[in-house]
Amino acid sequence: MCVPGCRETVMNRLSRRNFFRGAGAAALAGAAGAMAPAGPVRAEPASFTKVVDMTHTLHPDFPTYFGKPGLGLDTMARLGDDGFNMNRWSLVEHTGTHMDAPIHFSEDGRTADEVPIEHLVVPLVVVDIREKADSNPDAQVTPDDLKAWVADHGPIPDGACVAMNSGWGRFADSEKFRNADDEGTMHFPGFHIEATQYLLEETSALGMAVDTLSLDFGRSKDFATHYAWLPTNRWGIECLANLDQLPAKGATLIAGGPKIAGATGGPGRMMALMS
Amino acid sequence: MCVPGCRETVMNRLSRRNFFRGAGAAALAGAAGAMAPAGPVRAEPASFTKVVDMTHTLHPDFPTYFGKPGLGLDTMARLGDDGFNMNRWSLVEHTGTHMDAPIHFSEDGRTADEVPIEHLVVPLVVVDIREKADSNPDAQVTPDDLKAWVADHGPIPDGACVAMNSGWGRFADSEKFRNADDEGTMHFPGFHIEATQYLLEETSALGMAVDTLSLDFGRSKDFATHYAWLPTNRWGIECLANLDQLPAKGATLIAGGPKIAGATGGPGRMMALMS
Repeated sequence: MCVPGCRETVMNRLSRRNFFRGAGAAALAGAAGAMAPAGPVRAEPASFTKVVDMTHTLHPDFPTYFGKPGLGLDTMARLGDDGFNMNRWSLVEHTGTHMDAPIHFSEDGRTADEVPIEHLVVPLVVVDIREKADSNPDAQVTPDDLKAWVADHGPIPDGACVAMNSGWGRFADSEKFRNADDEGTMHFPGFHIEATQYLLEETSALGMAVDTLSLDFGRSKDFATHYAWLPTNRWGIECLANLDQLPAKGATLIAGGPKIAGATGGPGRMMALMS
Repeated sequence: MCVPGCRETVMNRLSRRNFFRGAGAAALAGAAGAMAPAGPVRAEPASFTKVVDMTHTLHPDFPTYFGKPGLGLDTMARLGDDGFNMNRWSLVEHTGTHMDAPIHFSEDGRTADEVPIEHLVVPLVVVDIREKADSNPDAQVTPDDLKAWVADHGPIPDGACVAMNSGWGRFADSEKFRNADDEGTMHFPGFHIEATQYLLEETSALGMAVDTLSLDFGRSKDFATHYAWLPTNRWGIECLANLDQLPAKGATLIAGGPKIAGATGGPGRMMALMS
């Protein structure tokens, strides 16, 4: 299932097994970020009056990273025949608005059901890179983008989810979402490995979210951000919707990842609570 | 997929098609409850300092209403071979801690993705029937139980989810969860149709939740509560976990139903926020 060209890189990484264990994963990326904590990190009370749905509607034609359908629905029961309606889903975990659990890119990271519930209700930081993404689909969140956010809004809150708003959410139901060129290489924004290192070294963020198909930008062949972030028992969300409706700071993200034993992630209901 | 004995009842209902449209559904059950509103109902701000996970871990052996496995996992990619881990789920919608969308028991009720997001973040009312359920697995929530709750705690909040705590959550990983007798009839608690009518007539509740496999009690052959409640565009949750950890009043439920087009419900991450 590896994308073209990434296999060698991946195999090189895998030959250094220790790096996939614990803090070694961060070291692999040159980052000093420690493992995510085992328990709650949130102490501040939060209040809200409004909820924003951050989940795209998933359907069999929703664009996927690999370009193949990620969802099939089979009718199992019909009201007229059976007295009720019911379907069975055939669902690839990393489809639609979904969570990447730590195990997705690690040997022994947490599966989706093992992520502590307190890590799924967290302050949401929105980093707006729409301007540069408008002119360059290969744009990435850089340390400078994060430093500019901090200069404007203060330190990144403890346990936050840091989300990239590249404006890509508006393309979710079109070919522009994958934006593949003639050679099949995709072009959409993501987190630069140096921004990932910044988050690991300088903050206690627990989550990273993008409005595109991957935490790494579309051109990536080495999944550098995935390999740096997830093995530290931090999580990701891909294909997040409606970031335009949120403030840069102050919302609370409900990261409704699936509670399925052994899942490497999967679709869930993502919401934001706002005052 | 109908349970033994329910088919005739269901067919009788289906022959009266009008009852499945709009407020007729409530009339079918003798209730006067109007359709659920189209938009937000919540006005009160809410605050919280604590989150409780109300989702059981779903696995292939998790008990199901029909007694057959509701989940299968197939490995699609392995870290050692592909550079990452990924599975495909084969999942029956009404498995584990899950939402019943209005369409589950109606002709034209909302599908899971159509339930307004504001209806999924609601005040949680917990009705404790553990004492009578301990001595009688066929116990049901009755109007008297609801009236006793109101006498103790005041009116049921607008837009609430009313949850039955029968103590059944502790059986979720055992045969006692289905509690089938020698003839295959299940015995577990649920909402009595008269309690459902009370909620439709006397309150503006939007959701109904149980810690068992069905909104109707296990012995039910006619799904009276399902047929009264869901066609009014209200929703249900089955197999809710950890109700013991919640107050009777004051928590906010995050009903993380799936946003899959056409879904009749499905597993999601259910949480409660508490001050």
